[in-house]
Amino acid sequence: MQVVSVALAGRPYSIHIGANLLGDAHLYAPHVAGKRVAVVTNDVVAPLYLDRVQQALAHAGARPVPVLIDDGERAKGWQTLDRVIEALLAARLGRDSLIVALGGGVVGDLAGFAAAVYQRGIPFIQAPTTLLAQVDSSVGGKTAINHARGKNMVGAFHQPLAVIADVSALDSLPDRELRAGIAEVIKHGVVLDPQFVAWLEANIDALLARDRAALEHAIQRSCELKAQIVAADERESGRRAILNFGHTFGHAIEAGVGYGKWLHGEAVATGMVMAAELSTRAGILRREDAERVKALITRAGLPVQGPMLSTERYLELMQVDKKAAGGKLRFILLEALGRAALHGDVAPALVRDSIAAAQ
Amino acid sequence: MQVVSVALAGRPYSIHIGANLLGDAHLYAPHVAGKRVAVVTNDVVAPLYLDRVQQALAHAGARPVPVLIDDGERAKGWQTLDRVIEALLAARLGRDSLIVALGGGVVGDLAGFAAAVYQRGIPFIQAPTTLLAQVDSSVGGKTAINHARGKNMVGAFHQPLAVIADVSALDSLPDRELRAGIAEVIKHGVVLDPQFVAWLEANIDALLARDRAALEHAIQRSCELKAQIVAADERESGRRAILNFGHTFGHAIEAGVGYGKWLHGEAVATGMVMAAELSTRAGILRREDAERVKALITRAGLPVQGPMLSTERYLELMQVDKKAAGGKLRFILLEALGRAALHGDVAPALVRDSIAAAQ
Repeated sequence: MQVVSVALAGRPYSIHIGANLLGDAHLYAPHVAGKRVAVVTNDVVAPLYLDRVQQALAHAGARPVPVLIDDGERAKGWQTLDRVIEALLAARLGRDSLIVALGGGVVGDLAGFAAAVYQRGIPFIQAPTTLLAQVDSSVGGKTAINHARGKNMVGAFHQPLAVIADVSALDSLPDRELRAGIAEVIKHGVVLDPQFVAWLEANIDALLARDRAALEHAIQRSCELKAQIVAADERESGRRAILNFGHTFGHAIEAGVGYGKWLHGEAVATGMVMAAELSTRAGILRREDAERVKALITRAGLPVQGPMLSTERYLELMQVDKKAAGGKLRFILLEALGRAALHGDVAPALVRDSIAAAQ
Repeated sequence: MQVVSVALAGRPYSIHIGANLLGDAHLYAPHVAGKRVAVVTNDVVAPLYLDRVQQALAHAGARPVPVLIDDGERAKGWQTLDRVIEALLAARLGRDSLIVALGGGVVGDLAGFAAAVYQRGIPFIQAPTTLLAQVDSSVGGKTAINHARGKNMVGAFHQPLAVIADVSALDSLPDRELRAGIAEVIKHGVVLDPQFVAWLEANIDALLARDRAALEHAIQRSCELKAQIVAADERESGRRAILNFGHTFGHAIEAGVGYGKWLHGEAVATGMVMAAELSTRAGILRREDAERVKALITRAGLPVQGPMLSTERYLELMQVDKKAAGGKLRFILLEALGRAALHGDVAPALVRDSIAAAQ
C-alpha cells in the first residue's frame, strides 16, 4: 500500500492506495469507532462493494447505514441531495456521525457536499471506486452538485478525513470509464510534471491493459501532484486553478450535449486539446508540445474532437465558468509541458478558432 | 453608531449598530467597490428599503442586482435556495461577486447559505431589518435552510464580511416581531449576564415602547455577548451550544405546529420557560430564578405556554436536534441567571414533566 499525504495546515489527511483496501477495517477504525456511518453509494457500486465496506465498518466498531442513490451524472442535483439528507435524518444521524462516499466522482461530489451541509457539516471519508475519482475528484476537498446552468455551481470546500483508493475496484470498471480517468492523469502530468508525461507516453498501453503496477504508479503520482497544489492553495484563490486545465471547454461540452452523455474525463480530454490549441494560437506554447498532448490523448482512446455545437454556444456556456471574473472569461493555458498559468487576456477570436480547430 | 467587533482569528468583522445605516455608502464601500452585488430580500422588505440599499451600493461603486424571495419561514427551503442560485447564475455573478442579505432571519439564513455554497462560496454582508436578526441570527455565521424533518438541518458556518444593523428599520417592524426579537435578547442575558437580565427587567417597557436608546443598548449588549461566545467557539464544538438555551423545545414547537405559525422567537420564549422548568426539576436551578425568567418573558408579551402537542410528539420532534449525540437528547440547562451548560444526562421523565408544566 502507498500512502500520499495531503499536508493541509491543521487538518492533514492520508490517501491510501493499494489492492483490497475497501474491506480493510484498520483503515476506517481511527475515524469511525463508536459512530453511526452513512455509506452513500449507487445502485451499480452497491452490489459489488457495499457488503464488504459495511462489514469492515462494523469490524471497526461503527454502525453503518446504507444510502443508495441513482447512478450517473444526472443524480448530481438538488433532488438526490435532498433524498440523501432525508435518509440521514430518517436514520437520526447526529452531528457526531459521518459519511463514507463509496463510488465514482458523482457519489464523491454529492456525498461530500451532503457531509458539508448536513447539520452545518459532518466529517466524511472518500472511498473512490473509479480511476477518475481516485486520481482527481476524491482528492482536495471540492464537493458540489450541478445546476441546469452549469456544472458544480453549488458546492463547498470540505476535506475528507481520509481517502481509500482501492485499485482492485478498477477491475470492474468499464473501459470507457478507465479511459476517462486517464484523461485526468494526463492533465496532472501536462500542467505539472514533464517527466510524468514522458512516463505516460511510455506506459499508456500498460495502463489501458490495466497493468496493476502501472495503475498504482499513475494513481500515486497523480495524487502526489494534486496534493501539493491543494496543500498550497486549498480554496483555489490562486495556483490551484491550473488543475482546471481543459475544464472551461470541457464543462461547456458536458453542458452543451446534456450532462451524462459525455463522461467528464472525455469532455476534459477534448477540452485539453482545445486549451493546448489556444495556448499555441496565443503564442505561448510550441506547436509540437500541443501535438504531444493531442497524441497522448488520442492513444488513450479519448475524443479529440468536440461535439457539434456552434462556437457561440460554447462561449455562452463558458460564461458561467467559475474562473470568470468581472464578466470576462479566463483560461488556464500551457506555457510548456509541465507548466501552466491562468490567463485573463485571451482574444475571443482565438478562443473561437481553437474550438473550430477541434471540431 | 456603535461598533461591536467579532474577533474571529484571521477574519474579524464588525457589527455596525445605529440609525439610518442601510443607506450609508461608507459602510458598504470597503467590501463592494467594483463588484457585482446581489441584494437578496423579500417582498415585504423590498418596498421599504431596497432602493435605499441599491443606491448606497451604487455610490459605493458596486453594481447591485436585486433578488426577491417570498416572505416567511416557508421560504427557507430547497426551492427558494434554488431560485436564488438560479438568479445569481442568470445574472452571471462570478466568484468575485458578493451577496447582501437584506431582511429578517429567514433572508439572512437563506441568503447566507446561498453565499456559502454558490460556486463553493462567495462573501456576504448581513443587513438585518428585524430585531431578532439584529441581535441573533445575523451574528456568528450560522446559515441554513429547513428540512421537513427539522429546522436548520442543512446549512453551513459562513461568516459575513460585516453586519449592518439599522435600528431605524425597527420602526416598521410589527409588534409581534419586535417581541419575538426580545426573546433572543432575554436569552443572551439569561445564559450569560445577570446584570443584563436586571437591566431588561428595568427596561422591558421602554423596549416594547420602541425607545430608541433602550433598543440600541439591548442590541449592542446582545451582540457583544454573542460575539464573545462565537469568537471562542466558532463551530459550536463546545461552549457556543449554550446559545441554544430554549431551542431544543423551541424547535420542536415550531416543527410541531408547522413552520411559520409560531415565530421563532415565540417558540424560543416558551422553550426557555420549559428549559428553566427542567433546570429546576433537575435540581440545578433555584425555583425563584426560573420564575424570574418566566416573569420577564410574560412581561415581554411572549407566550409561556406550549401548543397542544402530546409530550411524546415533543420527544419525537426533539430527536433530530443537532445537539443529540449517540441518539440521546442533550439540553442546555440553567445553573443560575447568567450561567448555563450542556447536560447529557437528563431523565426523560423530567423532560416530560417540564413540557406538561408549560402546557
